[in-house]
Amino acid sequence: MELLSRISQLVDDVRKKQPLVHHITNYVTVNDCANMALAVGGSPVMADEIEEVEDMVSIANALVINMGTLNKRTVESMLAAGKKANELGIPVIFDPVGVGATRYRTLIAQRLIEEIKFTVIRGNISEIKAISGVQATTRGVDASEEDSSELKDGREAQRLAQNLSRKLGCVVAITGAVDTISNGEKTFSIHNGHPMLSKISGTGCMCTTLIGVCCGATDDFILGAAAGVLIMDLAGERAYESLDKVCSGVGSFKVKLMDQVSRISGQNIVEGAKIYEV
Amino acid sequence: MELLSRISQLVDDVRKKQPLVHHITNYVTVNDCANMALAVGGSPVMADEIEEVEDMVSIANALVINMGTLNKRTVESMLAAGKKANELGIPVIFDPVGVGATRYRTLIAQRLIEEIKFTVIRGNISEIKAISGVQATTRGVDASEEDSSELKDGREAQRLAQNLSRKLGCVVAITGAVDTISNGEKTFSIHNGHPMLSKISGTGCMCTTLIGVCCGATDDFILGAAAGVLIMDLAGERAYESLDKVCSGVGSFKVKLMDQVSRISGQNIVEGAKIYEV
Amino acid sequence: MELLSRISQLVDDVRKKQPLVHHITNYVTVNDCANMALAVGGSPVMADEIEEVEDMVSIANALVINMGTLNKRTVESMLAAGKKANELGIPVIFDPVGVGATRYRTLIAQRLIEEIKFTVIRGNISEIKAISGVQATTRGVDASEEDSSELKDGREAQRLAQNLSRKLGCVVAITGAVDTISNGEKTFSIHNGHPMLSKISGTGCMCTTLIGVCCGATDDFILGAAAGVLIMDLAGERAYESLDKVCSGVGSFKVKLMDQVSRISGQNIVEGAKIYEV
Repeated sequence: MELLSRISQLVDDVRKKQPLVHHITNYVTVNDCANMALAVGGSPVMADEIEEVEDMVSIANALVINMGTLNKRTVESMLAAGKKANELGIPVIFDPVGVGATRYRTLIAQRLIEEIKFTVIRGNISEIKAISGVQATTRGVDASEEDSSELKDGREAQRLAQNLSRKLGCVVAITGAVDTISNGEKTFSIHNGHPMLSKISGTGCMCTTLIGVCCGATDDFILGAAAGVLIMDLAGERAYESLDKVCSGVGSFKVKLMDQVSRISGQNIVEGAKIYEV
Repeated sequence: MELLSRISQLVDDVRKKQPLVHHITNYVTVNDCANMALAVGGSPVMADEIEEVEDMVSIANALVINMGTLNKRTVESMLAAGKKANELGIPVIFDPVGVGATRYRTLIAQRLIEEIKFTVIRGNISEIKAISGVQATTRGVDASEEDSSELKDGREAQRLAQNLSRKLGCVVAITGAVDTISNGEKTFSIHNGHPMLSKISGTGCMCTTLIGVCCGATDDFILGAAAGVLIMDLAGERAYESLDKVCSGVGSFKVKLMDQVSRISGQNIVEGAKIYEV
Repeated sequence: MELLSRISQLVDDVRKKQPLVHHITNYVTVNDCANMALAVGGSPVMADEIEEVEDMVSIANALVINMGTLNKRTVESMLAAGKKANELGIPVIFDPVGVGATRYRTLIAQRLIEEIKFTVIRGNISEIKAISGVQATTRGVDASEEDSSELKDGREAQRLAQNLSRKLGCVVAITGAVDTISNGEKTFSIHNGHPMLSKISGTGCMCTTLIGVCCGATDDFILGAAAGVLIMDLAGERAYESLDKVCSGVGSFKVKLMDQVSRISGQNIVEGAKIYEV
């Protein structure tokens, strides 16, 4: 109860504070992330030129680093912006898209983790396994079926999140059919969302953006991570409910997902969230 | 009346002439700009490799330079394309996204303005202030609340647009709750649009694209700028009207905005435009 | 009949096999391509850093190379990924966007064709003409009206597709009002689709993605190409049918196109396809 009312408060605060979130992100889902940030009440800015990222992050309330379409040029910008954010005490959210799929991605993820102190890391179970050095079966940018099946039980994901969280001193969020969020001490399990969220591109990236916006409006980062994940999950449920089942599909679902994020309030969180400390 | 019928004519001409508009733009809103150009009757082409931009702009009817996600590589392409367009008498539209937010952006905007003769510059009030060398309070890529409040009165925006227009010898369009367009001699004020336009990413960029398409079909560039702004404003009003208020949000609004731009005609301009010479 | 049932079977197989399709593509339509791949049952991954493209393509079932926004950096990645795919026997689909519009595009297309053995090349008639060394009148990225008018008769497109197919030893698909697909021996003509498909950005790119996904689930690549084109065409027809004609436009059409691709089944192909061997 207490937890829910704090998350609810944060969701309402975000609309008042309009946190500015600097993104260094991929070119696949960047527009969806910008619109998500606006829909939830934040203000997105995307900038990846090394000459300006330190200036840009200095005026931001949070930094999102997403490695969906990595390249050598922007890796240097990620490092510069991340270090500057650390210096200024600005939260840095990391989305290690596709880590484990190629040696380069794994290498860069390691380098980013070594040189930047992340506030929150969000990934699917394959990605979090790869980052943890556990054998993962990443296939492209989606979680493998093998890895996903472990989510049903939940204990494996909880252990993973806790261990990585303790090792890196940051909040870890594993999203999937069930979501697990840990700061090493407390661990939460979220039983919301809808399977259609996995049928459109970029819901992982958008969730990371929502976490970024929420962390830009609080100092309690496990709360920020939980709020971001819950907003995405509840908006997904409500989008599906409002869908005309006779002729709709993924296109309409994506539009309605955006609609629902723009309509969500703290009160909706209180009413719909299924979040449990484990 | 005479003005409205000329804008109306231009909007209809655009659908016949299908101007080809070369964009060197950011990767956040580029898809929306391409679809906007098509929706209004133009033909978009995006190309930013320095080896080809001069060839590409040579077959275009207008060039749009948008600095949303600047980087060193594409700045050189912007310069090359802009100079070629100047040489060939092709109109060049400039969207100085986020100028003032970082020193790099301000520097690059200055360099572009020095080396390219722009036909139209469109920005929000914070951006136009920054370009004018007036103290602005740019926060990321959105106009600051402080600066926006000045729009209500209007005289400050009119003075800014006139002065910058005279200084650079180009049309200046300041968009916001009220839009101001000046070529130094004549200044127009547009009282159309809808607040939801500021709730989705890229409406500024899309407006610049619309101006680009319109300027690709006329030699009267203040008319082209006014037509582009009016199309966006009226489509925004009509999109909001057609919205199901019970369960819609920003996702549906964006879809309907695109719908309305694709349906707009010169007749709609005559019926709905609130444009005044000031 | 036999042909239709094989295409129908392939469309259903795609949903079971979920082919992973590595894209090196442009930043204009990349999000639409990712969502199309997911909608039809595939799994998209976008990666263009030369350090990782060989690793990425090695785990993929098909590679799509789309030159919409070419630059020197990604050309090298295209070459590396394409050669690796050839080595491993992974099908490579080429979309020569805008070839002929600039000398650079023509040069790069030639270089890609010389160094990579493509499985399928898909383009509009202006692009296929330019690649064939026939005088084309490419205007930006859309087929010219002159070239398009030749599609009505069909024999010119058939000859072009057959000749290029024999010359390069690959399947050639020319899409437009009528689609022509040839492997040099057999040539098919498809009379499906809807004019609104040309009113939104990226339907060519999305069609190439659909071909990529289908070719990732079969060894019969002319079948894969035909399936991809038919999915796009039939989804376009069904999207238009389901459109509210009173207030809809290109925005709604695009959403419904995505909806229909996500709903399409082999049975729909059997019922709606108008494909003929010529």
